[in-house]
Amino acid sequence: MRRMKVVIIGAGFAGLDAAKLLRKCPRVDVVIVDRHPYQLFSPLLYQVATGALPEDDIAYPVRAAIPGVTFVRGDVVRIDPQAHHVRLYDGQVIDYDQLILATGSVGTTFGIPGVEENALQMKSIADARRIKTRLLNTYEEVQEGRLPRESLRVVVVGGGPTGVEVSGAVAELQASLVREYPDIADRASVTLVEAGPRLLPSFTEESSAHAKEELEQLGVTVKVDTAVDRMYERDVHLKTGEILPAGTVVWAAGVAAPERWSDLGATGPARRLVVDEFLRLPGAPDVWVIGDTAAFSPDGGAPLPMVAPVAMQMGRHAARNITALATGKLMKPFHYLDKGQMATIGRRRAVAETPQGIRLHGTPAWLAWLGLHVAYLAGGRNRVSVLADWAWNYLAWSIGPRRAIIE
Amino acid sequence: MRRMKVVIIGAGFAGLDAAKLLRKCPRVDVVIVDRHPYQLFSPLLYQVATGALPEDDIAYPVRAAIPGVTFVRGDVVRIDPQAHHVRLYDGQVIDYDQLILATGSVGTTFGIPGVEENALQMKSIADARRIKTRLLNTYEEVQEGRLPRESLRVVVVGGGPTGVEVSGAVAELQASLVREYPDIADRASVTLVEAGPRLLPSFTEESSAHAKEELEQLGVTVKVDTAVDRMYERDVHLKTGEILPAGTVVWAAGVAAPERWSDLGATGPARRLVVDEFLRLPGAPDVWVIGDTAAFSPDGGAPLPMVAPVAMQMGRHAARNITALATGKLMKPFHYLDKGQMATIGRRRAVAETPQGIRLHGTPAWLAWLGLHVAYLAGGRNRVSVLADWAWNYLAWSIGPRRAIIE
Repeated sequence: MRRMKVVIIGAGFAGLDAAKLLRKCPRVDVVIVDRHPYQLFSPLLYQVATGALPEDDIAYPVRAAIPGVTFVRGDVVRIDPQAHHVRLYDGQVIDYDQLILATGSVGTTFGIPGVEENALQMKSIADARRIKTRLLNTYEEVQEGRLPRESLRVVVVGGGPTGVEVSGAVAELQASLVREYPDIADRASVTLVEAGPRLLPSFTEESSAHAKEELEQLGVTVKVDTAVDRMYERDVHLKTGEILPAGTVVWAAGVAAPERWSDLGATGPARRLVVDEFLRLPGAPDVWVIGDTAAFSPDGGAPLPMVAPVAMQMGRHAARNITALATGKLMKPFHYLDKGQMATIGRRRAVAETPQGIRLHGTPAWLAWLGLHVAYLAGGRNRVSVLADWAWNYLAWSIGPRRAIIE
Repeated sequence: MRRMKVVIIGAGFAGLDAAKLLRKCPRVDVVIVDRHPYQLFSPLLYQVATGALPEDDIAYPVRAAIPGVTFVRGDVVRIDPQAHHVRLYDGQVIDYDQLILATGSVGTTFGIPGVEENALQMKSIADARRIKTRLLNTYEEVQEGRLPRESLRVVVVGGGPTGVEVSGAVAELQASLVREYPDIADRASVTLVEAGPRLLPSFTEESSAHAKEELEQLGVTVKVDTAVDRMYERDVHLKTGEILPAGTVVWAAGVAAPERWSDLGATGPARRLVVDEFLRLPGAPDVWVIGDTAAFSPDGGAPLPMVAPVAMQMGRHAARNITALATGKLMKPFHYLDKGQMATIGRRRAVAETPQGIRLHGTPAWLAWLGLHVAYLAGGRNRVSVLADWAWNYLAWSIGPRRAIIE
């Protein structure tokens, strides 16, 4: 049996977990292609955006991260399932026997006017850096009289875990900046806008209510049943007619699979590619789709959510099925094991729940969140560094977060 | 007696130490003006440039750092000693009773052709970021075949403490990258070029020889008595006729006071403004010049070196003299107390010496260097964070430095 070449596009949770398992199979050669030579730990992106963590803490060099796996930095622009190759932006062509598409998701604006131009996304290190710079620069510009004081309002759109986490973190950042900007700090505020009837719609109603209460304790104004109509440079217009002047708008309202794969096959909600029970693209049996890019609907129901645990389980499952192919064994259908979900709201404020009915709120949920996130960070160094930074943030809170550099 | 308004231009070692003392005088109002709202701990800039520390570690928010002192972010473009005011780039005018000019120094190219365009300076966070990006990107580009392998040579120009520190740190970075780029890493190298006859010319010959030996043990090629003739995008031409192909050239050969102050008074070497025994500008008794911008020559000899200890002592002395003026006491002439100098070469490699004849090399010098630098870092958080990062770098060396993000 000749060796099998597996090309993985995307070095995120799904792609890397697939690679880690695949490299254990001696018949398989693994190549990972990604635009960045680092793995981004996106669940903590909001902490970089609000200055609680330095950006290096949530990025891990991907070259040599998995011994025996080849890394190619590049942007895949086309996939040709017939010819069994992919083409990179620079013209390079990489052929494959099996292809794993694990390119995650991108922010989507739902076509709402002005969002593209005026809201800040939350998907990449560059996005987080832009948010942090905007937040801190706004204080400087207001202090210097170059921006109106209303600019100190931050609007976060989207009441899912990301929106809740950003809102809480921005409120805590604002509280820590009172000492540095005593004359203007009282004008700083956060408004969280959610189109649906409650925050954290994938959680129980009890957890939703708890999250709202906790955010309000932090000073966040929560507006549910409130959709955004359009955005301008200096303000957000809501469907209710209300106008919110704001210097920073963070868009956490929705993500979708990258547009460039839409013609590879049938797509479900959010442009996600529909996959079969084994996680393959129907009609292209050598193409596997995993993570946020894939729409896998157990028992014909709604597709699994676009979260890291789903991505990691899909990655490992695709790797096991490809190993089965390479070694002449039988493939197995994918089953998702739901271990629960959690969202953090602020220091010692979080919600967590499991399908078995366990509900944690407040400090216990927050500690669980802390432990899990440190455990899943790649690289001992990043773990140590994040722990040290958090210890400082949470124990010596009065000193304020690290966020000195604005350029 | 009416209150005295002291305006300090520059939030570096000199300016901040002046502000800290001045605010203790109840008759004085202090305003600091700087282009950046943070204090840069420039002695550790080379560690940011080589990925050993995240940039936030060496920047400390300057607003509210000194209670009772007003901070204005701005770029001073003109000083009018007659009218007693300064003008900012944005048109704002700030008047003063006493002015302290503490704007540090900038890199200078000595007019060598091609340096401006092709060498990377080492003066700001932005500079350090550029060096880090270039160093890491070069590995990626060589790996991908877009740059020739010669690009992995790094040339550092200038054998003073900065040049020695950068050379050692780059050599250690290169050693840590062997694992990630096994196919090309053997082509990586560092060449340190110094125009004078020895490294660290302000140190004893013994320390110079020790530094050279240590650098060579780290694999650095040291070329003394070697001046740069000109530079191109891909190579450095030496006066000896030798041509060094290089992907990264770091310029650590010289600094000078900012050009814009040259017409304020007489200038000494490196455009530094000559000051009187009290640190005032001759002919403009209400203008004080301290730190790298000032040329203070004890007993008519050579001006004091452009280093942090001189800047800090000058800052405190100017503050004491201004306090004397404000309270009707006598000013005192400035005397520099030389406590010695140190330069680090790499992990457990450094040189330190005092005027009393104490000489430290190797681990003791390095530990002294470590302790002093942590002690002088502003902000408890930065101290903790730098210590944690160093502990990781120096104890878990094999894992390599943190330096994941390249964009």
